[in-house]
Amino acid sequence: MLDQNLPTEAQLSAAIDAAKARTEVADIYFVACGGSYALMLPAEYAMDRQSRTMAAHALNAAEFKARAPARLGTTSIVILCSHSGTTPETVEAARLAREKGALTIALTHVAGSPLDEAAELSIHYSHDPKRLEPTHSPAVLARLTFGILAAREDNAMATALDAALNQVPAIVDNAIAAHEDRIAAFAERHKRDTVIYTMASGSNYATAYSYAICIFQEMLWVHSAAIHAGEYFHGPFEITDFDVPFIVLKGLGASRAMDERAIAFVEKYSERVTVLDAEELGLGALPADVVEYVEPLVFGTLLRVYSDRLAFYRGHPLTVRRYMWQMEY
Amino acid sequence: MLDQNLPTEAQLSAAIDAAKARTEVADIYFVACGGSYALMLPAEYAMDRQSRTMAAHALNAAEFKARAPARLGTTSIVILCSHSGTTPETVEAARLAREKGALTIALTHVAGSPLDEAAELSIHYSHDPKRLEPTHSPAVLARLTFGILAAREDNAMATALDAALNQVPAIVDNAIAAHEDRIAAFAERHKRDTVIYTMASGSNYATAYSYAICIFQEMLWVHSAAIHAGEYFHGPFEITDFDVPFIVLKGLGASRAMDERAIAFVEKYSERVTVLDAEELGLGALPADVVEYVEPLVFGTLLRVYSDRLAFYRGHPLTVRRYMWQMEY
Repeated sequence: MLDQNLPTEAQLSAAIDAAKARTEVADIYFVACGGSYALMLPAEYAMDRQSRTMAAHALNAAEFKARAPARLGTTSIVILCSHSGTTPETVEAARLAREKGALTIALTHVAGSPLDEAAELSIHYSHDPKRLEPTHSPAVLARLTFGILAAREDNAMATALDAALNQVPAIVDNAIAAHEDRIAAFAERHKRDTVIYTMASGSNYATAYSYAICIFQEMLWVHSAAIHAGEYFHGPFEITDFDVPFIVLKGLGASRAMDERAIAFVEKYSERVTVLDAEELGLGALPADVVEYVEPLVFGTLLRVYSDRLAFYRGHPLTVRRYMWQMEY
Repeated sequence: MLDQNLPTEAQLSAAIDAAKARTEVADIYFVACGGSYALMLPAEYAMDRQSRTMAAHALNAAEFKARAPARLGTTSIVILCSHSGTTPETVEAARLAREKGALTIALTHVAGSPLDEAAELSIHYSHDPKRLEPTHSPAVLARLTFGILAAREDNAMATALDAALNQVPAIVDNAIAAHEDRIAAFAERHKRDTVIYTMASGSNYATAYSYAICIFQEMLWVHSAAIHAGEYFHGPFEITDFDVPFIVLKGLGASRAMDERAIAFVEKYSERVTVLDAEELGLGALPADVVEYVEPLVFGTLLRVYSDRLAFYRGHPLTVRRYMWQMEY
């Protein structure tokens, strides 16, 4: 365990140093549940895009434990996340990984929590759902990922990523202010919908997934599914009709062409499409090779403000739950 | 290109021999779109569970091309699938992989198709959606996966897998006959539903995903999402209510406990749950270490018969499309 009074920066450095000190790292597993699992997907994406020496795998924590990958062992790094640090599946996954000799690094908001205790190293992040600071969980995970890439390979993007993350708070604030009218119109337009789909690709699929399962299904009791923009034309697009609502994220990274193709189709056959375009949000000002690792964070934070307003118009606060935290399950 | 008159068995052997002949294989990519992508997920699962030397990655073909994994190269095997062999994204993925020096192996129903031409090696499979023979695509892919494991590692499960696959046609036929009344009741019960969820975990998540996007969204225009049983408690379960329909697959593999936990909850709060239990389907007769690689095939075939009846009761044949094959997109 790290001293729990250490600030995020020192914990992040210690985790990167520990990753560097490993003799061999063949695999990096990103393991969590729900919203924290969604957080892991851009990190897997970044490793797939960037790493020549480490294979990346994002898995739900219960799936990770049941699957018990044959490669899991002393050549593995396992990065876990639980906001409260109490998610039992994630704590068990940390224990399994540690038993197998993997380097375990936990991200959590709560020092002294079971996950904090179970992992070899921890990073404590700060939190505010309507802002995105470099010490918040998605930014900390991106910094950890590129820090490990810098430490173990000749990847030089960490500096540019840090610079981009420093610009994110202003980009988010500006986007929220600029979207004020659109946020109100969105909430009015969708206040009685029973189904709203999300769609994205590349690093932004994570935000679409998180929004579908945590905001729509969990917090608003609206039916939803995250549709991968590349999968859309191979099944899901048949559900499109003039009155079927979609939120689509248009990224600036490698998968922008995929998003554009899906948007051209969905806007032709549905009258109820909300497109958030990274370019329009001001993300085009960031370096082209870094923007795709930052944009899911900006989309996620802006969309949180969209959902706050929608929740108000529906009379269903995002804090209401019928099962979660209400009972044993 | 292989001689297109070669039967499936010889093509399968040639592909396994080619995989064995590679000096080093660090990664195996499973690449396709839609229903064929779903087919790849149990293969990725099997490699994760079994392989110590090869890291597995399943990706939608457009995502694969855009992501352009840094590790893709001469130490990669890329397995692709397109039924018609004409899926442009999958053909482009095969070309990219081949340019990078990867061994490319295509599964397709159509000899001489663009994918057949683009890949270094091909395996032509036979097809009948309501049966499951060892020469059908999911079985061929399982045999290829365990054939590669046998050829490159000391994995001895291929023989037991082959024996299990030989038992599958009878298991499927018996299950369809035994479920006759349940199939009719299911179709009656859900003929007017606008939303039906699917849920599974482990190797069976693939079948839940395929059913959600290809049967419900694409063929029946019913809103749907595949919920991972391990993710269910971290968001999606809040959408559960007395009248929300779910189809849940209960496997016999490593993730059975995950399925059982989700089923206990969903059956408590929804009155409209259809559980298909691998044990009840006769899969318990197969060896415990092999059954999880076979059961998604059995679930998929049985569920196809469920959807045929549901389509009839809804007056919406599974062959009807409004966009697919009707226009350019």
